[in-house]
Parts: sequence; structure tokens; C-alpha cells
Amino acid sequence: MGKKNKQFVEKVTAMEEDFAQWYTDVVKQADLVDYGSVRGTMIIRPYGYAIWENIRDILDGKIKETGHQNMYFPLFIPESLLQKEKDHIEGFAPEVAWVTHGGDEELQERLVVRPTSEVLFAEHYSKIIHSYRDLPKLYNQWSNVVRWEKTTRPFLRSLEFLWQEGHTCHATDEDAAEETNKMLDVYAQVCEDYLAIPVVRGQKTEKEKFAGAKYTLTIESLMHDGKALQSGTSHHLGTGFAEGFGIRFTDEQGELKPVHQTSWGITTRLIGALIMVHGDNRGLVVPPRIAPTQVMIVPIAQHKEGVLDKGYQLKEQIATFARVDIDASDKMPGWKFNEYEMKGVPLRLEVGPKDIEKNQVVLVRRDTGDKEFVSMDELSMKIPALLEEIQTNLFNKAKELREEKTSVAKTFDEFKQLLEEKPGFIKAMWCGDVGCEEKIKEETSATSRCIPFDQETVHDKCVYCGEEADKLVYWAKAY
Amino acid sequence: MGKKNKQFVEKVTAMEEDFAQWYTDVVKQADLVDYGSVRGTMIIRPYGYAIWENIRDILDGKIKETGHQNMYFPLFIPESLLQKEKDHIEGFAPEVAWVTHGGDEELQERLVVRPTSEVLFAEHYSKIIHSYRDLPKLYNQWSNVVRWEKTTRPFLRSLEFLWQEGHTCHATDEDAAEETNKMLDVYAQVCEDYLAIPVVRGQKTEKEKFAGAKYTLTIESLMHDGKALQSGTSHHLGTGFAEGFGIRFTDEQGELKPVHQTSWGITTRLIGALIMVHGDNRGLVVPPRIAPTQVMIVPIAQHKEGVLDKGYQLKEQIATFARVDIDASDKMPGWKFNEYEMKGVPLRLEVGPKDIEKNQVVLVRRDTGDKEFVSMDELSMKIPALLEEIQTNLFNKAKELREEKTSVAKTFDEFKQLLEEKPGFIKAMWCGDVGCEEKIKEETSATSRCIPFDQETVHDKCVYCGEEADKLVYWAKAY
Repeated sequence: MGKKNKQFVEKVTAMEEDFAQWYTDVVKQADLVDYGSVRGTMIIRPYGYAIWENIRDILDGKIKETGHQNMYFPLFIPESLLQKEKDHIEGFAPEVAWVTHGGDEELQERLVVRPTSEVLFAEHYSKIIHSYRDLPKLYNQWSNVVRWEKTTRPFLRSLEFLWQEGHTCHATDEDAAEETNKMLDVYAQVCEDYLAIPVVRGQKTEKEKFAGAKYTLTIESLMHDGKALQSGTSHHLGTGFAEGFGIRFTDEQGELKPVHQTSWGITTRLIGALIMVHGDNRGLVVPPRIAPTQVMIVPIAQHKEGVLDKGYQLKEQIATFARVDIDASDKMPGWKFNEYEMKGVPLRLEVGPKDIEKNQVVLVRRDTGDKEFVSMDELSMKIPALLEEIQTNLFNKAKELREEKTSVAKTFDEFKQLLEEKPGFIKAMWCGDVGCEEKIKEETSATSRCIPFDQETVHDKCVYCGEEADKLVYWAKAY
Repeated sequence: MGKKNKQFVEKVTAMEEDFAQWYTDVVKQADLVDYGSVRGTMIIRPYGYAIWENIRDILDGKIKETGHQNMYFPLFIPESLLQKEKDHIEGFAPEVAWVTHGGDEELQERLVVRPTSEVLFAEHYSKIIHSYRDLPKLYNQWSNVVRWEKTTRPFLRSLEFLWQEGHTCHATDEDAAEETNKMLDVYAQVCEDYLAIPVVRGQKTEKEKFAGAKYTLTIESLMHDGKALQSGTSHHLGTGFAEGFGIRFTDEQGELKPVHQTSWGITTRLIGALIMVHGDNRGLVVPPRIAPTQVMIVPIAQHKEGVLDKGYQLKEQIATFARVDIDASDKMPGWKFNEYEMKGVPLRLEVGPKDIEKNQVVLVRRDTGDKEFVSMDELSMKIPALLEEIQTNLFNKAKELREEKTSVAKTFDEFKQLLEEKPGFIKAMWCGDVGCEEKIKEETSATSRCIPFDQETVHDKCVYCGEEADKLVYWAKAY
């Protein structure tokens, strides 16, 4: 790394030194967010929002392809409505914002600012579902939600965040189970194929499942510091809400039955995962498939005749096969290099007078730093190929890192030692007793991340109590 | 209209009988909205939301083409922040929702659920703008906002609605003025070219301008019942917020100056306009360019061999040039006809055994009811042409109706008589005195809609006071 990079590098704390500070530095320096004036809220700046728009558009396409329809529910939930499903209110009441006044008047009933919309969907479904012909109902909503969190960090845990929440109704438990699986698969695809984040798919334990669900499926990813991040969840809600809200249908035999429901969501948290999986000490690294700008053109000696013209001409040409921009501001090239490295733009294209003479450009990869001279005639072949290479490389690197940071513990001593010395996923057997799970959390602050679909027998005894155990669980400290 | 249509027609009150009830019937029967459980809120159902998505995507494309970037601000505004711009807080304080508690705790400072985000943008701009190089800043946000309205109606006036709000900063007053105009033009284009709603462009009077603005530009449209609807506004904010929030920049001469700002927005209200401009007694009529489904295929005698297969085959074929769907449910064709008429789908395609024999289909226009036999080989020519024809026809019909309902009044007696007998836009001269404007409102409940850009001299005296007057104003009762 040349001298010119120094000015920016100094602004970002090294991740080995202080990972939390590194994260904060990157979200700020890469212009992803600014802090809102209310504690724990964030302003998602244009660059951060453009990443979110790409994630949203990709996922929205898949949500629609799988037969779902978008709709929009109100922000406010009457207190009495939230209380209709007991487990649900217990799970959410401590962390909601309350509206008590409208204009000058005190409200007769307090309103909750939605922390999630199960009860709103449930109430609506109870009105519009009558017969088996009305099923399935496959709805989704993109919205903001509010949770009154005590400790907050941009993207990872904030008072307000953006998300989508799917809510579906089915005639049978099996149909709901199939939907729960299907949407987890969609999430895993978005994470792996677009965000280049490898995930472990599995089921949450009873203790960690969603408040009010029959069971919760999850995709779990691993950050650079060895902490896990729950990246998307899909809940089989069973008939709990249907019973509470009277969502019943007449089946083909004329019998009245409750519907079987699911709900599933991903949030702006995924941007946090992106940062912590791919980022490095020079800043963000954005996988090409979701990068707002895939190629940034930086003209060299742009005051010289023909350079800017060529830059704009290249931009126009590249725009036909990649998302491209040019920085023609009067900042020094070195400054620009730093800025787009910080922002994690996958490819930098440099073009100066000498390059023009030779009918070539310089392409620099953000992920490896590799530099290459490429003929201007080959850009339409070379750039898409390089972008694919970067995409694949990021995924492979992330997967390798995860494998490195995944260990097996057979005893609780091993478990504690690993957490200390080699933080990451710990694969360990569990007897199924919530007591053991709670003790592990109490004593190590690691939580069960999931019971992975890919089960293996790494041992035959529970890592905590030593009793017989046949469930493999992924454990980790988590965001 | 055949007998089969009756069952649905009876559900919708005739607009001549009770326009307000007709409107309510249509929004419900066309499955656009359902009422939320909090007074004055609405659930935007999939069909209504799909229309909104189309409006949003079209407008979002134009917002980006004109160099703007999307971002996202928090939902909550601290009370003290809202108070920084005096006119602004006075305008909004009576109609906001207040958050007073988070979890179990009472907040030290009350939070406002955003009714609009000027102050949030202003505070952010004050942090990120330093030099003329930072200008212009062209930001936009898509979000929900809350206004504690007393009287509400779906889409037209509700406690919560969806919108976009653009907020920009410029180096000069002229630049801000140009932006204000440009975005009004964009809104007018979306209304006229996509929603097929003709608009009058003009400036709001001082009395009717946005709280805190230097001036407000508006597009005004006219509904079927002769009431006006403000369909989009673009505000030149001057330097008021810049002074209040200290948004200053160093110009090229090194002088510190306040920025000049604009803001502009359109909302889900536009769906209300759409209903009331194009709808009829059979329900909604959606212009093809924003219709979620442009062609609905209804198989006739679908139990007969080959009919459904042909239907799906046609769907696949038509999908390459239009948004198409097929209703293969076991409802009677007559029911289906009614349903898609109610939903305003521009074209219905009927195909039955006899049609298949003759290699033809029946196309039925929603706007005129015209029926036509069309060869299956000509669909790729015929359907796009028909959709364009419908689009143009809807715009022309709406424009004709507006012309019919636009009158000139020279005296206040004429003014009152016209309002009574021929509700619509009244073009009348105004002396510029807010006293006259207030009196007109008091005595007739009509308001000044705008001072149109296309000025003409229909008289030389103020319609209220009879003094000399050279400003033409559009007046109307309004939603």
C-alpha cells in the first residue's frame, strides 16, 4: 500500500486492535450511516441506502417469483390488539415505543409503534379468509419497525430498522412447514449468491425461537471477529395466532379449521453482516452483485487533453454491462483511490494519457489489490469476468474463514477454552435440556445459534451435563 | 351491460347519487384498502399496493435520472428539534402523534412521529455541508409519515400515509428555484403521462403555502365530482431552515453563506385521485401504464379440453409485451368479468372453445366496453396498440371533463352560483389581498388552488372586493 493511502487508513482503527471501533469507523468513513438525533437511531446515507435498495430489489424479486404479494399495514397497533397472543406480547412489550397523545389530546388507548406486525396481519386475515379457496394467502410487507433497545449499534441493533416481514396462511401444517423452509432457502440464496455470505441453516432451540412460534428456522453467519450474526429467520407459527384471532376456514369437507401460519423476515442488519464478513482495514468490501457501483473510473492527470473525454466515453461503454461511475472531481487521484477503497467498490479503472496512447486501462481489484493492464477493446469481456471472480473469491474467503473459526467441543472445559482462544462457531452436542442451554449462556455468554439441518455426531454426550445427547448444536457469542 | 354484471353493480353506490359513498365502495370492492384497527389508518391491500409500487417505481426512476439519491431518516423527531423553525412547528404541532414512553420508561423528551422530515434533513445537512464543492445536495426519501387528522378517508386523508419527500440544498436562490420547477415538472409528467390525470400547474398563495417555505408550487387536478385535489407540491424553502439549523457553506470567494433549499413530495393520495378521475359506476379504471395487470385472461367453458392450456399459452405469449394474468379459478366467467371490471383492468381477453377453433380471442376494453374479435396471430400488435389507445382516451376524457367543469367568474355572485350549480375549477381574478381569500373561503368553503403559470386576464377586478386585480387564480372546493 503506497504512501497516498495513509491519510484514510489512519482514520480506521485496525480490526485486530479494536473490532467494535473498526466497525464504527467503517460505517462512518464509508458514508453508510450517520447517527440520528434520537439515541439509537440511524440515518442511512445514500451509499448505505443504495446497498439496501439492491438487497431489497433482489429479495423482492424472489418473494414475488415465489407467489407472494406486497401490501402495507399501519404503523400503530392498539395495546389491546397486541395482547391477543400471550407469548407474543410477553416477548415484545418490554421493548416497544408507546404513542400516548395525538395532537393535543391524550389517547383513550395507548398505541404501540409496530415492533413486528403479526397481530395486524392476523386481524386482517381473520376478516378475509373464509374458505379453503382463500388459501394460501401469501403476503409480504417492506417497512420500518421500532424496538426500544438499550444498547444499540448502526445496522446491528437500532431503535428503528428497515425490513421485510412475510406473513402467510395455509390450510395444513405441512403447507406451512413447506413455506417456512422455502423462505429460509430464499434467504440463504440471497446471502450466499449475492452478499457472498456463507450461512449455516438450522432450527432455533425452544428457548431462542420467536415469541409465539411453533418453531423458528434461521440462517447464521460468522463475522470476522468470530461472533455469529442471525441473518434471517423463518417462523412456523402453527395455529397460535389463528386461535387467538379466529382465523378459520371451511375446508373441502365443510369443517371449520384454524389456518396454519408462517412469518419470516430479514432486515438492514444484513448490511452489518456484509461489513463484518468482507471488510478489512482499508474499509468496506462490497460483493459485485450488490455493489451500487461495480466499477469506479478514476482519470489520471485529468487536466490533460482527452483524458476526461475518454473517461466519460469509457463510462458510457461500460454502462452497457456493469454499474459504473466516474469521479471527475478535482481531488487528487490518491484521494479518490482511498475513498473508493473505503467504500469497497469492487473494481477501480484508472485511465491516463499514457494509457490512452496504448489503448489500455488499469484495473485494480478491491478484494486482492491485484492490478492489471487491459486493452480497451477487451473491457466488455474482462470486466464482467473479473466481477464474477471477485464475487466468487469473496464467498470462498468468507467460507474458509468460517471453517477456520469453526471448532468442535466435547467437554465444557474445551468449550470455554475455545471461546476464549479461538472465538467462532463451536459445534457441540446437546441433550435437549433448556437448563443446560441456560447454564452455557450464563457461564460463557455464548448462545445456541441453531440445530443445523446438516446433523453430524461429533460426540455422544451433552457438552454441558455429560448426559447422552444426539443433537448437534452450533454455539457462539452473537450480535 | 348484461344481467350477469348486476350482482357487483349493486354493491357500488352510483356516483351521481352519493359520490363519497361511491368512493368508499370502490376502494373496498376493488380490494384497494381495508380499514386499520386504529381510527383513520388504512391497510393497503395487495392490489392497491401494486398500483403504489408502479407509481413509486416510475417516479423513483425519474428522481434518480435527475441526479437525486435516496436515503432514509429516522421516524422519530425530538420535540426540541421540531421547534427550531418557528413557522414549521406552528404548522405541524397540532397534528402530530407523540411518543412519550419507551419500554417501561417515560422519556425525558417527547418524540414526534415524523409528519415530514425537513428538520431531520436540515440537521444532517448542517453537518455534511461545508463548501460550495458539497453543493448541490439532492436527497430523497420514501417513507411513511403520520398526521393526526380529525376527519379521514382512505388515500385522501389518513393518519398515516406513504410518500416520498425530496430535500435539496443549493448554492443560490436561482438554483433552488430551478430545482423547485424541475420537480414540479416531474410530478406533472407522472400524473399526465402515466396516471392519465391532467393537472394545472401553478403557485400557491401565501396563505396556502407550506409552513416554512418561501413559496410553494403545486399541481392541481379535478375529480369527477368537481372537487380539486392537490396532487403534488414542490417548495422553495429559501434560507429559513438554513438559518435555523446553521446550514452554511464557504463559497468560491471564501465567504460563509446559508444554503438555499427545496422540498417536494407526492403521496398515496394519488391513488385517490386515480379513483376519482377515472372511476365509474362499475368501479375502478386503471390507466394501462400503471396497471398492475394490463390484460386479464378469462377462459370460457374452461372445463372443455384445451381451453385452459390455450389460456396459459396465451398468458406466456402476452407476457413478453404486456403485464398479463389468467383467472383459472372455478368461478363463473360472469363473476370474473365483474371482478376485473371492478378492479379496472384495462383489457379483458376471453377465450373459449369456439374462439380456439377460429384462432381468435375476444378483447374487451374497460374504458369503453368495446368488444373486438382479434386473431391470435395479431395479439402482439393489437394489445400494445389498444393499451396505448386506452391510455390516451383516459387522459383525453379526463381533460374534457375538467374543461367542462372549469368556469370563469367575474363577480362574487357568479362565483357562488357556479360553485352551487356547476362545481369545478373557477377561474377568477384576485387582488392579492389575503383578506379577500379568507372571506371567499369563509363564505363558500372554496379555496385558492393556485395562481396558474398560464396566466390570462379573464377580468380586471378582484372577484371578491371589486378592486383592481391582475392575478388569475383557480378556485375550488378541495379534498
